[in-house]
Amino acid sequence: MYIGVDLGGTNIAVGVVDENGRILHKGETPTGVGRPFEEIIKDMGDLVNRVIQESGYKVEDMKSIGIGSPGLPDQENGIIVFANNLGWHNVPIREELQKHVNLPVFIENDGNTAGLAEVIAGACKGAKNSITITLGTGIGSGIVVDGKPYSGAHSVGAELGHLVVQVDGVPCTCGNKGCWERYASATAIIREGKEAAGKNPESLIYKLVDGDMDKITAKTVIDAAKEGDETAMELFDRFIYYLTMGIITIINSFDPEIIAIGGGVAKAGDFLMDALLEKVKKHIFYKSAPYAKIVFATMGNDAGIVGAAMLGNL
Amino acid sequence: MYIGVDLGGTNIAVGVVDENGRILHKGETPTGVGRPFEEIIKDMGDLVNRVIQESGYKVEDMKSIGIGSPGLPDQENGIIVFANNLGWHNVPIREELQKHVNLPVFIENDGNTAGLAEVIAGACKGAKNSITITLGTGIGSGIVVDGKPYSGAHSVGAELGHLVVQVDGVPCTCGNKGCWERYASATAIIREGKEAAGKNPESLIYKLVDGDMDKITAKTVIDAAKEGDETAMELFDRFIYYLTMGIITIINSFDPEIIAIGGGVAKAGDFLMDALLEKVKKHIFYKSAPYAKIVFATMGNDAGIVGAAMLGNL
Repeated sequence: MYIGVDLGGTNIAVGVVDENGRILHKGETPTGVGRPFEEIIKDMGDLVNRVIQESGYKVEDMKSIGIGSPGLPDQENGIIVFANNLGWHNVPIREELQKHVNLPVFIENDGNTAGLAEVIAGACKGAKNSITITLGTGIGSGIVVDGKPYSGAHSVGAELGHLVVQVDGVPCTCGNKGCWERYASATAIIREGKEAAGKNPESLIYKLVDGDMDKITAKTVIDAAKEGDETAMELFDRFIYYLTMGIITIINSFDPEIIAIGGGVAKAGDFLMDALLEKVKKHIFYKSAPYAKIVFATMGNDAGIVGAAMLGNL
Repeated sequence: MYIGVDLGGTNIAVGVVDENGRILHKGETPTGVGRPFEEIIKDMGDLVNRVIQESGYKVEDMKSIGIGSPGLPDQENGIIVFANNLGWHNVPIREELQKHVNLPVFIENDGNTAGLAEVIAGACKGAKNSITITLGTGIGSGIVVDGKPYSGAHSVGAELGHLVVQVDGVPCTCGNKGCWERYASATAIIREGKEAAGKNPESLIYKLVDGDMDKITAKTVIDAAKEGDETAMELFDRFIYYLTMGIITIINSFDPEIIAIGGGVAKAGDFLMDALLEKVKKHIFYKSAPYAKIVFATMGNDAGIVGAAMLGNL
């Protein structure tokens, strides 16, 4: 049995997971960002102990704790080097957590744990070489090669949201310009949806929110596109084009066996997938050679816990 | 001892290589593109036999033949699936070559063999995880992970020249738009050099070729930039910016230990490297974390033979 911890900016979720990636019991607590890291990690430890107890198992039944963290974890030294949305810098999470629970602690970037979960129990099961893309506020990503998360030589890899797809493009939070997540995330759809609806008040996007632009979500835009609204369709088409160009970059470089797409935007379903597959086919480099299967991720919100737990079973 | 074959659009180069990647003897013959593949491969076989004989060794002293080929080789079946600049499509190179030399035959994309050569005997020696970029007519690339060429799940990977860096940008030979090699290859410098010199006849680029625009090479533009010519400097700066954005994409995704840069454009030396390192540092995602060392490739024209030969020693 393994403990998986999904450490997010809003909540900490913890689960007891078996070796097949099945969650036996789980629980969560608010992260309470802004407090000293010792307090946050104490809450994490308390939650781990509580979830184990509620599951009917004992700490001794657990092989390890795996933590999926945002930002840049240093797996070797058990430190979170940076995590912007936690406000953390060089936090010794392993040492601190072990004050509360005496188990081995593994840490990994949360994009990679989500990718690992898809390989162990989700859409990428059985693949030797897969990439999971999460379209949300940004674009999260996890690369798994031969069953193990790939994070490169300095653990700074797999930040696929920061592929540069438009030199001199939209400024990104990372300080660069034209990063993929500025064009193909939920945030991008919302930004462009607001802009388009402002210019075209006759658009269905505008009507769906009764003119209250702050209510525009990615779903608003996609729903309007599904209904055939011209402004929304144009915007959606552009979004799919940018999404495609990042996927093409991934295929032309990594050539994964499978690419799984998750996150809120993926809820658009076949409407999104059909458009994406058509565009990828059109723009791919080797047009008659086989290339990555593109599918939806299937682990949903459990991906973080499952992937983190499985860090102890690699 | 191993045989390495560098199969190019102009020449076929063959060498006898020891297990340390040292070339003991080599020779070459024109490829003669346009002839039936049987003839070309017969010439290749004859050259292999001749080079072995001249080296003082015997065929029995050789463990294998490795071939670095342009395009898309199918290593499993010993076939070149496509190679545009040879005009080849599904050529059974292994079977055909074995009619002339009775040795095991390995094939690999020539970008990957160049990368392998740098790992075995060049700039990336000792690295677990490296990427070699060749700035020439296009951008060639080789990824080596744990000492082995990485070409992905369908052997279509490592075409880093076709990273999309400018959505809707300059049309590429691959059918897509905005590929990296349209902006950061010698061809790109020449194209932009001609355009800029045409508009600015007072520019040193124009003077260096006595107004004969067809004589403009990447070296012309870089030499003019080194002399402080404004038009050339602007163009070079833009070239470095695009080169940087592809490198950033590589670091943010693969996070290699080392990136080696070769090809004709690399002859610009420190002038290029200093400008590149400065821009990479400025635009990198994790600004205070360590990232890939960026250096020049050192194997030069021998890379193709050495890397191909070493396919038999992985």
